[in-house]
Amino acid sequence: MKEHVYTFRVQYPETDQMGTVHHANYVKYYETARWEFFRSLGIPYRELEDEGYMLPVTNMSFRFLKTTHYDALLTVKTSIKAFKGVRLRLEYKLYNEKQELINVAETELAFVKKGSWKPCAPPQHLVQAIEKYLDSVG
Amino acid sequence: MKEHVYTFRVQYPETDQMGTVHHANYVKYYETARWEFFRSLGIPYRELEDEGYMLPVTNMSFRFLKTTHYDALLTVKTSIKAFKGVRLRLEYKLYNEKQELINVAETELAFVKKGSWKPCAPPQHLVQAIEKYLDSVG
Amino acid sequence: MKEHVYTFRVQYPETDQMGTVHHANYVKYYETARWEFFRSLGIPYRELEDEGYMLPVTNMSFRFLKTTHYDALLTVKTSIKAFKGVRLRLEYKLYNEKQELINVAETELAFVKKGSWKPCAPPQHLVQAIEKYLDSVG
Amino acid sequence: MKEHVYTFRVQYPETDQMGTVHHANYVKYYETARWEFFRSLGIPYRELEDEGYMLPVTNMSFRFLKTTHYDALLTVKTSIKAFKGVRLRLEYKLYNEKQELINVAETELAFVKKGSWKPCAPPQHLVQAIEKYLDSVG
Repeated sequence: MKEHVYTFRVQYPETDQMGTVHHANYVKYYETARWEFFRSLGIPYRELEDEGYMLPVTNMSFRFLKTTHYDALLTVKTSIKAFKGVRLRLEYKLYNEKQELINVAETELAFVKKGSWKPCAPPQHLVQAIEKYLDSVG
Repeated sequence: MKEHVYTFRVQYPETDQMGTVHHANYVKYYETARWEFFRSLGIPYRELEDEGYMLPVTNMSFRFLKTTHYDALLTVKTSIKAFKGVRLRLEYKLYNEKQELINVAETELAFVKKGSWKPCAPPQHLVQAIEKYLDSVG
Repeated sequence: MKEHVYTFRVQYPETDQMGTVHHANYVKYYETARWEFFRSLGIPYRELEDEGYMLPVTNMSFRFLKTTHYDALLTVKTSIKAFKGVRLRLEYKLYNEKQELINVAETELAFVKKGSWKPCAPPQHLVQAIEKYLDSVG
Repeated sequence: MKEHVYTFRVQYPETDQMGTVHHANYVKYYETARWEFFRSLGIPYRELEDEGYMLPVTNMSFRFLKTTHYDALLTVKTSIKAFKGVRLRLEYKLYNEKQELINVAETELAFVKKGSWKPCAPPQHLVQAIEKYLDSVG
């Protein structure tokens, strides 16, 4: 499975009084990871919105395996699970510096028209970029 | 199914440029809902931590059904799905002012010792409060 | 000095690993306090945006006097310091349950047109509501 | 004036429905900028806490000059305004990709003992690192 790799540091405001990362932040980490994945395909998410598309989350699930901490250097590995019609399903694996898997997540996203929020086919250049990406794995 | 009811308003910083609530905030809404549920049982979460327990999330999943907006008055209905050993599984349903279901979620929590993060039995007074609550449904 | 009173609880995600409230959250507390103040004047901020106005912050300052903690029940007292042309200056005092002053802040806001972000006169009904409010103090 | 430079991208959850960055996020941007500055001095903030110190904000002020947007690549230039006794005063200037100044801020921080929150002298190795840094400007 081909994966996109995104590395970042845990920031102080993301901690809570348990002394770990508050679990709501994982949602944000994976969002940034997926838009960095899109950027690597040549299609920044910002351009998609400029073209009149939005890609809201319709389902998301997270499994917490290990705790982490402030200033940790974490890595998200993002892969495509399914891409059909208006839906895109992505999987994320989060690793700490020791390459231990600390979280696994999935999000399902739907392409909608900006403004109306009506489901719509993704733009053709994104479809092609994703297909080319998937083909490159073999 | 007996449910705990918690009502709140969407705040401005919770919006994003889609003009809706950013999906990471649902994680926070349900957290507040569950601690208000605990408070209604006579056991504020803060006291649990003072007694040496923590209750981190081990699994969470969210299904987004309808969008919402700034200043909406939303209601969470929280119910217990399972409570056995160190695990507590809660379900949340989120409704808008028209009583439309806009989100459904589940979280699994595990009782751990503060400091060591070792799984541990929940405190007896909480077990009793939850059992009493479940009995009152019949 | 007439003051608007808004009471709320510190939520768990607002804590950080210092075991206190992360300082960025005060910005959000005061924003909610000012829109509750507007609501009490009969003009929810949401309606202002619907009418084509926005009220972004142009200056803000905060003085931290005492620390606080998760689940604290805090009270913001909001008062108008100045209201002239396109600018509104508000002062906020934050108190804990013992009525100790824990934070003092000021924000300056500017009325701008939605879309263009051009400074503009506030809507007449808001001007009147604020003047009536200020008169009622004597 | 010697300045530390830190560059980052605006993330999606940092936007609000005005279509810009919510003003509370500037607090977080500058916090990250100051700890990256500390890291560049050879003293990650995390180590300070491990040694028993904390550095909470006692005063902060922000002036908003220009708006920005999602995915903008912003640069913070951090400089030391004063360092005496238990207090450290830092200034931050935030620039967009066109090198336009979009925000100016100051924070005053106080060294306190972890646990007691009692003001205390900063650790000697930090004092020396900062003095060496200031000397290197001339």
